[in-house]
Amino acid sequence: KIDGDRLWDSLMEMARIGPGVAGGNNRQTLTDADAEGRRLFQRWCEEAGMSMGVDRMGNMFMRHEGTEPELDPVYIGSHLDTQPTGGKYDGVLGVLSGLEVIRSIRDMGISTRRPIVVVNWTNEEGTRFAPAMLASGVFAGMHDEDYANSREDAEGKRFGDELDRIGWRGEEVPGERRIHAMFEYHIEQGPILEAENTQIGVVTHGQGLWWLQVTLTGKDAHTGSTPMKMRVNAGLGMARIIEAVHRIAMDHQPNAVGAVGQANVWPNSRNVIPGRAVFTVDFRSPDLDKLNAMRARLEAEAPEIANELGLGIEIEPVGHFDPVTFDPGLAGMLRDAADRLGYSHMDIVSGAGHDACWINRVAPTVMIMCPCVDGLSHNEAEEISPEWASAGADVLLHAVLEAAEI
Amino acid sequence: KIDGDRLWDSLMEMARIGPGVAGGNNRQTLTDADAEGRRLFQRWCEEAGMSMGVDRMGNMFMRHEGTEPELDPVYIGSHLDTQPTGGKYDGVLGVLSGLEVIRSIRDMGISTRRPIVVVNWTNEEGTRFAPAMLASGVFAGMHDEDYANSREDAEGKRFGDELDRIGWRGEEVPGERRIHAMFEYHIEQGPILEAENTQIGVVTHGQGLWWLQVTLTGKDAHTGSTPMKMRVNAGLGMARIIEAVHRIAMDHQPNAVGAVGQANVWPNSRNVIPGRAVFTVDFRSPDLDKLNAMRARLEAEAPEIANELGLGIEIEPVGHFDPVTFDPGLAGMLRDAADRLGYSHMDIVSGAGHDACWINRVAPTVMIMCPCVDGLSHNEAEEISPEWASAGADVLLHAVLEAAEI
Ligand SMILES: NC(=O)NCCC(=O)O
Ligand SMILES: NC(=O)NCCC(=O)O
Repeated sequence: KIDGDRLWDSLMEMARIGPGVAGGNNRQTLTDADAEGRRLFQRWCEEAGMSMGVDRMGNMFMRHEGTEPELDPVYIGSHLDTQPTGGKYDGVLGVLSGLEVIRSIRDMGISTRRPIVVVNWTNEEGTRFAPAMLASGVFAGMHDEDYANSREDAEGKRFGDELDRIGWRGEEVPGERRIHAMFEYHIEQGPILEAENTQIGVVTHGQGLWWLQVTLTGKDAHTGSTPMKMRVNAGLGMARIIEAVHRIAMDHQPNAVGAVGQANVWPNSRNVIPGRAVFTVDFRSPDLDKLNAMRARLEAEAPEIANELGLGIEIEPVGHFDPVTFDPGLAGMLRDAADRLGYSHMDIVSGAGHDACWINRVAPTVMIMCPCVDGLSHNEAEEISPEWASAGADVLLHAVLEAAEI
Repeated sequence: KIDGDRLWDSLMEMARIGPGVAGGNNRQTLTDADAEGRRLFQRWCEEAGMSMGVDRMGNMFMRHEGTEPELDPVYIGSHLDTQPTGGKYDGVLGVLSGLEVIRSIRDMGISTRRPIVVVNWTNEEGTRFAPAMLASGVFAGMHDEDYANSREDAEGKRFGDELDRIGWRGEEVPGERRIHAMFEYHIEQGPILEAENTQIGVVTHGQGLWWLQVTLTGKDAHTGSTPMKMRVNAGLGMARIIEAVHRIAMDHQPNAVGAVGQANVWPNSRNVIPGRAVFTVDFRSPDLDKLNAMRARLEAEAPEIANELGLGIEIEPVGHFDPVTFDPGLAGMLRDAADRLGYSHMDIVSGAGHDACWINRVAPTVMIMCPCVDGLSHNEAEEISPEWASAGADVLLHAVLEAAEI
């Protein structure tokens, strides 16, 4: 078993970097706080005898040597970046559990044939720069580097410039590494494991996603002196499309969700009819047909809504992945490990996107989940127990040792 | 007649301060640009022999002496502040036409028994600090000074602190001045005069207004992994209330309008269900019963919408004025002046709120309007012709000379 106290202490120490306003974290990707978090992780890994590689997307690869260094390594990866009002565990648990696995096997004097590499993937959250899982997507060949470097945040700052600014661009070509297998350990971010009173989720599938950014163009005008029939109100169009997104998701129940998380109107003044609205629709389903049907319905209905109000409309996909099936062999290793350790487990579908969803396209990949309180995530109040955290890390340890061949 | 070229040149020169991004202005109240605009106006007035008084709300009173200085002065007032993406004429035309009236009567060697005071009222627009017409409202005894000083902008900066910061707080007690009559000259900001091909609007009435700030409280949560039935989506609640505002306004046609101009969700992240939404409803009507009925219906329907979604709701009035009836005697002077000058005129209701609406409660007040292209205002593309501008200023000159007693 890993050292649960040490894992928890590391989680709490990392959480001091980029604190939030309500007990969580704001350590968004490519901020100064992100750079500080990376330095702390680097120091911890180097203290555990690992050596660092960094690629041109800022992905950090911390290598623990195997007795046969020429064999393809086993990877353990997740992300250290957070939402603007994020929790202390989303992503961080997976990265620091990877570190804890290495610390533990060193303590135990175990060696593996294959090297083990613990990865921090850049910009998983996708809040500052869409899409999410950007750098693991480049690694997996889903996006090219120019696309990634050109992504802009809300202030117009480019991903590539910010990566250079914080000093974390490496020289390695993204995707050149060979991967024997990758494990990602993550909190569930949903309510199922807690409700089922189960310690371990063996993630067999992941939902697919469409992010559709909608831009409506109307005409700024005075809210008082402009007659109702002369208005071209982009805010009203946004409201109707938000409602349509909800209705579309409800019509595709079960196994489908939809919402608008980001929504802005311009000039955002109490007495100006909004002349422009920009917002992002988030549709997800584990069922590819449903996922694409929801997108198609939005692309049919939203222009009708816009048209009726005289609004211009553009719909741009800014994030996408198909539903994922993780590696059945690795999933079997997780079940065996959980059984061996006496932990309750169940198969589960990931509701969120993860770096593992991209890496799964280039190497055998699987995910482990632990419960989180009330299924709450992307909220500073996100919570897990130290026992939940270490149970998942124990399963990770056992499965990684099997994959890395003791 | 006034000097139309000089008036136009002054408008263009003022527009160079706090330029917008698309040909208009961003000279929001109590910004550095506002301070610079005030200094230019002060200089021009002093060059025209006027003397300045400033009250504790930053209202600027530029006095042209009468032959009987002890008589109550005639006032000409409007505002130099603009929307964040505002036009060059909204408010500014009225203030600079007041200055032009003084310049013209000096040129003509005319003197009046009563002094004439040209006023720049602080924070008319209400975008940065709600409510609109804040400082004329304090002058008229509608708000107390503590209330005004404590109003906060989106960054939490207080009105009083910003007034001190830009150095424009005077010592005069607001409202202590005696006013014989006040004239406000303003662009229509609506489509009627242009459609009717009429040069002068004699404003007999003004619409009343309610600004209702709605705060919805839900629960931030992951857009992917949170099942539909567990969501408490403040953004969806906002969308439904924006639609309700539109429906309520449509149900009160004609002579009623409603919209939401300012709308924000938190944390405003693509993959977070909004846990909070704050937005302001703007309802207007010249009919007091309709105005209050619209508010009452929103206060009945919005909590039902919130309730159905499990959202907390607060509704706070952040701006209000009743419909206004301007002084019939002064309106008659305007009609006579227009007839004398050979300008077409019609009676009109102001769709927007104006400082004149508050001053009307403490002194005889009236407004003059000129057309604006396509009725467009609160938009950088706001446009008027030099001929329209000077026709209204000519009417202002004649009516002011009559009221100030040549
Ligand atoms: N795990 C996680 O929250 N990832 C962010 C991408 C997504 O929205 O699913
Ligand atoms: N005239 C004008 O636009 N005033 C601002 C207050 C309002 O919204 O009516």
